[in-house]
Amino acid sequence: MAMVGGGPGSFIGPVHRMAAELDARIELVAGAFSRDAGRSAAAAAAWGVRGYDDWREMLAAEGARPDGAEMVCVVTPNDLHLEVSAAALGAGFHVMSDKPATRDLAEARTLADAVARSGRLYGLTHTYTGYPMVREARDIVARGDLGAVRKVVVEYSQGWLSAPVDNKQAAWRGDPGRAGVGGCLGDIGTHAFNLAEFVSGRRVDRLCADVATVVPGRALDDDANVLLRFQGGARGVLISSQISAGARNGLRISVYGERGGVSWSHERAAELTLDWLDRPSQVLHAGSGYLGGAAQAAARLPAGHPEGFIEAFANLYRDFAEAILAGRADAAPTPGIEEGVRGMAFVETAVRASGAGWVELSGDDACVR
Amino acid sequence: MAMVGGGPGSFIGPVHRMAAELDARIELVAGAFSRDAGRSAAAAAAWGVRGYDDWREMLAAEGARPDGAEMVCVVTPNDLHLEVSAAALGAGFHVMSDKPATRDLAEARTLADAVARSGRLYGLTHTYTGYPMVREARDIVARGDLGAVRKVVVEYSQGWLSAPVDNKQAAWRGDPGRAGVGGCLGDIGTHAFNLAEFVSGRRVDRLCADVATVVPGRALDDDANVLLRFQGGARGVLISSQISAGARNGLRISVYGERGGVSWSHERAAELTLDWLDRPSQVLHAGSGYLGGAAQAAARLPAGHPEGFIEAFANLYRDFAEAILAGRADAAPTPGIEEGVRGMAFVETAVRASGAGWVELSGDDACVR
Amino acid sequence: MAMVGGGPGSFIGPVHRMAAELDARIELVAGAFSRDAGRSAAAAAAWGVRGYDDWREMLAAEGARPDGAEMVCVVTPNDLHLEVSAAALGAGFHVMSDKPATRDLAEARTLADAVARSGRLYGLTHTYTGYPMVREARDIVARGDLGAVRKVVVEYSQGWLSAPVDNKQAAWRGDPGRAGVGGCLGDIGTHAFNLAEFVSGRRVDRLCADVATVVPGRALDDDANVLLRFQGGARGVLISSQISAGARNGLRISVYGERGGVSWSHERAAELTLDWLDRPSQVLHAGSGYLGGAAQAAARLPAGHPEGFIEAFANLYRDFAEAILAGRADAAPTPGIEEGVRGMAFVETAVRASGAGWVELSGDDACVR
Amino acid sequence: MAMVGGGPGSFIGPVHRMAAELDARIELVAGAFSRDAGRSAAAAAAWGVRGYDDWREMLAAEGARPDGAEMVCVVTPNDLHLEVSAAALGAGFHVMSDKPATRDLAEARTLADAVARSGRLYGLTHTYTGYPMVREARDIVARGDLGAVRKVVVEYSQGWLSAPVDNKQAAWRGDPGRAGVGGCLGDIGTHAFNLAEFVSGRRVDRLCADVATVVPGRALDDDANVLLRFQGGARGVLISSQISAGARNGLRISVYGERGGVSWSHERAAELTLDWLDRPSQVLHAGSGYLGGAAQAAARLPAGHPEGFIEAFANLYRDFAEAILAGRADAAPTPGIEEGVRGMAFVETAVRASGAGWVELSGDDACVR
Repeated sequence: MAMVGGGPGSFIGPVHRMAAELDARIELVAGAFSRDAGRSAAAAAAWGVRGYDDWREMLAAEGARPDGAEMVCVVTPNDLHLEVSAAALGAGFHVMSDKPATRDLAEARTLADAVARSGRLYGLTHTYTGYPMVREARDIVARGDLGAVRKVVVEYSQGWLSAPVDNKQAAWRGDPGRAGVGGCLGDIGTHAFNLAEFVSGRRVDRLCADVATVVPGRALDDDANVLLRFQGGARGVLISSQISAGARNGLRISVYGERGGVSWSHERAAELTLDWLDRPSQVLHAGSGYLGGAAQAAARLPAGHPEGFIEAFANLYRDFAEAILAGRADAAPTPGIEEGVRGMAFVETAVRASGAGWVELSGDDACVR
Repeated sequence: MAMVGGGPGSFIGPVHRMAAELDARIELVAGAFSRDAGRSAAAAAAWGVRGYDDWREMLAAEGARPDGAEMVCVVTPNDLHLEVSAAALGAGFHVMSDKPATRDLAEARTLADAVARSGRLYGLTHTYTGYPMVREARDIVARGDLGAVRKVVVEYSQGWLSAPVDNKQAAWRGDPGRAGVGGCLGDIGTHAFNLAEFVSGRRVDRLCADVATVVPGRALDDDANVLLRFQGGARGVLISSQISAGARNGLRISVYGERGGVSWSHERAAELTLDWLDRPSQVLHAGSGYLGGAAQAAARLPAGHPEGFIEAFANLYRDFAEAILAGRADAAPTPGIEEGVRGMAFVETAVRASGAGWVELSGDDACVR
Repeated sequence: MAMVGGGPGSFIGPVHRMAAELDARIELVAGAFSRDAGRSAAAAAAWGVRGYDDWREMLAAEGARPDGAEMVCVVTPNDLHLEVSAAALGAGFHVMSDKPATRDLAEARTLADAVARSGRLYGLTHTYTGYPMVREARDIVARGDLGAVRKVVVEYSQGWLSAPVDNKQAAWRGDPGRAGVGGCLGDIGTHAFNLAEFVSGRRVDRLCADVATVVPGRALDDDANVLLRFQGGARGVLISSQISAGARNGLRISVYGERGGVSWSHERAAELTLDWLDRPSQVLHAGSGYLGGAAQAAARLPAGHPEGFIEAFANLYRDFAEAILAGRADAAPTPGIEEGVRGMAFVETAVRASGAGWVELSGDDACVR
Repeated sequence: MAMVGGGPGSFIGPVHRMAAELDARIELVAGAFSRDAGRSAAAAAAWGVRGYDDWREMLAAEGARPDGAEMVCVVTPNDLHLEVSAAALGAGFHVMSDKPATRDLAEARTLADAVARSGRLYGLTHTYTGYPMVREARDIVARGDLGAVRKVVVEYSQGWLSAPVDNKQAAWRGDPGRAGVGGCLGDIGTHAFNLAEFVSGRRVDRLCADVATVVPGRALDDDANVLLRFQGGARGVLISSQISAGARNGLRISVYGERGGVSWSHERAAELTLDWLDRPSQVLHAGSGYLGGAAQAAARLPAGHPEGFIEAFANLYRDFAEAILAGRADAAPTPGIEEGVRGMAFVETAVRASGAGWVELSGDDACVR
């Protein structure tokens, strides 16, 4: 694997490296880690891989080596996602990209076309789908244990942008040219949206949004509350915020059906709670033998030994590696460009229609799986 | 105290009795507990109080006795709230009413006039305002510890109406003639709304609602999701549901300010969590000496000895009794007709404007405290 | 009911009053609330009952009145427990006593004889046995769901005596003449011990104790750790402390059998957790329809409406009232003199044998139920 | 790094690999993964490293290669710990060993001598010391925030050996020749013991144990409850069990001082709770900027992004790698042979003195750090 971006100061670059290599199926061999050649070289040296000054040069060089990388992971700010991903796909690499897929819906559709043309695999790191108990939740809903889905409540609250923040992470996220149409919505709203669709197994087809820029001086949203309607009629609420002061990384979801509800919270990621109309609640623990196949496959350790964010991330990479080996994108539960397009449709629709009542969620027609 | 309603089969009647008498300041002495004379007599006998066949007769008789009741508690279905409350006030009794105040906004305004004319005290049992840690939360927000309020998320999820329910409790709640304009909204949405305004110390002035009847055959709503705007600009989300299968009585609220957030959940009622931008979270426990005056006054037991719903309810009664003795309604934090009018304005606005985008929340102009 | 002790400054006196009256089956009518006549009169006036300067006088007067009290509740410091209880029983009153039963084992045996001779009912307020989920736990163990009991871990940790405390509550508890042989062990160790036997349904027959006085200057223990053996072979650990700084009232118990374990914690009193060898954990909630008869009878409110310490206490009183009406002590699950004798045997054995290795737990031979 | 043991079917071998490599400072290059040559070769192929049929052969070959391993990790059953570790040290390798250090105290002392003679570094994977919040707890105690330590309660409860288990993991753990003198005590009791000393910063100098074999037919203990005394006078309780049916991997510890207590539980590993005598409780979250240096250095991700068992394990390896680079064992907080000797002294003392009352904890005289 070769990495684009993720050099010194990056939060997510090192996570990609650790996650990709955790199961010894993928090895980082090269990287263009920074626009700054010195910084890129430093990162390469630290990780013992081939460093490049420029990602285009890297694609060419790695493509030409017999032992070159076969896949590229894209961990740049959003503005390069389309360009790098499309170029890598075009050059014959598989691509694993950090989310969101692109800056806006038009770019996402362009990328979807590039993926289709390339015949290569494209994965999108909606990390939370990698958690064993999220996969178990999806399976529980899918097999109808709860009856028909009626309601979905998903909340992703952070507080780290409660005041103006002056660092690299915050800088590009607040710049429309680099981040795209969504601020908080693009950064974490897409995760919440993806999680809602992933666990419920249903697509949002209408929404009514209240998207806000709470901290003065920002160009992009930092708080969003969205009413949802799902295909089939279920209702929902999506709360996404980076100004919920004191919140750390509070992602949680509840899906209610006719007979019960399933709830998962990132801060207790190894547990899944099932509440029923007329029998005791159940708490399922990751690593247990009674779980379904997807959840079991996603755990490396027995129950009571917590796995976390890196392991969930690693599950996406492991699945992706298996899909590459199998030669089939649909062999993997890893989110792909379809989810990328939907995410950008969500962000763009919510931002544009904020305050305007109910609107259709466009964007999914082109890519129904 | 004399009770109207609350006889055999009532959930809330016995709660009012236990709560009113818990602190030995109020004694139940009489009741017209049921439209059925035999049932009323049976309840009276069980509790050792004077029983009446008819509440009008009771008001007359108790008013005439030198040792008669001085206050009336109204625990009938909603359709009698206005009539009984107004008659009792007119006959010189103080009134403690179960929520919601009335069936609709017009009735609530009529009752507000009756309260004003009577010179008597009127209390409304928004129970959750009686919890020590809810009062502490309100005080923390009010004294500015969190900075300016930016966001309020309140959720009240129950699941007991996930399927058609055939009992007395469900029957009248589903009948518009008896319950009023709101189903779930009137029954528990008003609690959530009141809690949001109580803790945040801010009034909702606009809303955008998605109110639904999920279970076929119902005449009233059983699920509602509402986007909120507060005076001063804070945003909010209110979730209220009786079809969230498996949810028990899941009321919780988070209020976020510039520097931190405060969270309370009914299922852990004795705790209050404070999360801060840049220091450790805090957990405050009811009964502790470090709490503010309001919270301390609302606890009967030292920390670690749980108090619950009945004690919270009893705090409303105790405060009300003290206000009667002091001769001043504003001496008590007990919610009153103003909150009743606001609650009905909320329900009526949400129901009527559901799906129609943002609307002003009417109803508060007449009764700004 | 007539009360001895419990006047101004008492923590537990008001709890007994609220608990006794909560269900309208018992009415406090009189009290000798304090050795100080003025204080006793003040308490009587506040509660609207007949006040007496002296408890002997009260027993005589109430016994002579046609409408006099039928039962006496004893809430004095421990040194009066035997004398007052025996006198009341001898005078024909039923007695509900706060724990521990007496100051030491010899007194407890004397009291047991007095109870036997009197033909009256004697109850001991081991409050925690009144919680619905504790009763459910006992039933789950008793019907063998967990298989044979193998291990019991019970912990009761408080921190309020971490430093010398100068108040009325602490004063008598630290005085051997008034408290008896046990400090922390008598005050809360007896609760833990009782809970362990109540839930496990098994009796402790041997123990090995480490009993300490941690804060210098104390005459009695403030910390105790005890290894247990139960009849039938199960092992256990009992931890009881009043110097676990920061602990509030942390009583919790886990009972493990061959197939699973049941855990209850006072700070989440409405929940009961069942963990199984090979299936999902379960969480049972008080007030739920799926619970056993004992737990259902002990809840006044539906699931999700917390009940607490006062309601648990009230369950003991309600059961006791029913036993009085039924004329049979064994009709009630309320702990009685048998548990009182066992508790004192536990305290005395632990204190005397501390540091001396394993000893038999004497005291139960006289009173096997 | 070269691995001895850890081949197919091993739980802990893959954990060592993932943990060692997570931070890209250590690379697994070789292994003698199994006594079975075919299995060893299979593991080597799967991980892309040099495979050996025999660990002696591997030490010789790797030692001779210019690019050979510099350290050896020992993940065999306990009976080989001494032999492999001593040989590797003698051959100039640094050694990271899984716990317990050896089969018994005599072996541990022999190994201590070998470590001392070798001039190489020896680390012992007491994993839990790698958790950020465990390190924070240790620092909080060490800097005196709680005042003098008075009480330590540590519990490590598992249930997986509640019935006879027929697999590889259980087989060698139940065989005294392979596991050593302790069963449950050696396997997890040593972790609990180490954690108690690590967090409290105090050494146990006396104990009183109740060690049991609960499931018939076992040759070693599966349950142990131990009363502790620490140097300086603090008391403690250690509970260690593998027959607590339903328990997963429930390690938790509370340390109480004069002014407050600190509590950590493995199932909520990213949190640390501080309870105080007279102010609100605090909850510290891993990854937060307000934590001390040791905790901050041990977290890779910001607050709210859970890290788990593998990351804690990786912290031991990262520290060990830094100590190797620095050339000083005392540069690392990684537990070493001293902790290994103490652990074996604990196991042997507890097993031999079970039921015999209080005994001195021997073994530490030889190796006071």
